[in-house]
Amino acid sequence: MTKTLVIVSHPNLEQSMINRRWVEELQKRPDLFTIHKLYDLYPDYRIDVVAEQRLVEAYDRIVFQFPVQWFNCPPLLKQWFDDVLTFGWAYGPDGTALRGKKMGIAVSFGQPAASYSPTGLIGYTVMETLRSFELLMEFIEANYQPIYAFHAPNMAQGYDQEALRELEHSAASYSMHLTMYFVN
Amino acid sequence: MTKTLVIVSHPNLEQSMINRRWVEELQKRPDLFTIHKLYDLYPDYRIDVVAEQRLVEAYDRIVFQFPVQWFNCPPLLKQWFDDVLTFGWAYGPDGTALRGKKMGIAVSFGQPAASYSPTGLIGYTVMETLRSFELLMEFIEANYQPIYAFHAPNMAQGYDQEALRELEHSAASYSMHLTMYFVN
Repeated sequence: MTKTLVIVSHPNLEQSMINRRWVEELQKRPDLFTIHKLYDLYPDYRIDVVAEQRLVEAYDRIVFQFPVQWFNCPPLLKQWFDDVLTFGWAYGPDGTALRGKKMGIAVSFGQPAASYSPTGLIGYTVMETLRSFELLMEFIEANYQPIYAFHAPNMAQGYDQEALRELEHSAASYSMHLTMYFVN
Repeated sequence: MTKTLVIVSHPNLEQSMINRRWVEELQKRPDLFTIHKLYDLYPDYRIDVVAEQRLVEAYDRIVFQFPVQWFNCPPLLKQWFDDVLTFGWAYGPDGTALRGKKMGIAVSFGQPAASYSPTGLIGYTVMETLRSFELLMEFIEANYQPIYAFHAPNMAQGYDQEALRELEHSAASYSMHLTMYFVN
């Protein structure tokens, strides 16, 4: 399918600012994007593996959208990887279900971009921090696309006008990123 | 407390070879190690946050033991980080519950050690692969100790004599590692 499947993993999407706004943006183009919200579907973490595999098989472009918390993905997405990416399907003999598919991650960070550098507070880049996802994609022989990363504006006082502008900008630039690397 | 708390996260500990053997080894020294099995306690992923925080507060040496799957920790451990390491307790103002504690990870890998190098199949070292845990430990200002990593023997034909010897060796060397970096 030429549409892009966007697998959204946010433990509290309705209360999120960034990930919710991103979903709204993509939902403007149902011709381009299918939104698949893991926490809505599997609040008890019991993933329907066959249904998920059939869904993924139907798409050649797949994005995992999530907030980075503790430098890692939400637990339900990790559960999804563990349950859905089975031996003989995603890897191993005949495990070629995802081979060559355009896949990638789109992530939001609480810390500013400047922190993610060798001289910043975190000390490592976004790519270094999220290396495990790159390794996963390589292991299943996906065609890993550039990460879309957005660093949340300072929200100590809630979202002021400038923060809201940044958020709006990110929604547009997220959609553009997906269009560039996945849709086209 | 001078004992070391070992938080074990394995989705199927009874059927595991390595992590189960490691637990058996540590259980020989109940004077040194307290074993805390997350999947036994929270099969439904509903973590008792207050109980976990009180437990952690009682120890100055804490190890997270888990199998590396998809270059990452099991989902329940990530849930534990998200739920237990709260703002104001683990980080943020007055969030100093773990500051200065000796903490670390002990992990088993399915891929051989040679894969985890710039020229190996994975292309990155164990430390690079597991960077997110180092960053987490730094964020909560723990005193992060060296990783204990063991690479599973070839188990294609089950555990033969040589594989069993390697496993026995790893149990002893794991216990020694913890004694060196945590107990003493």
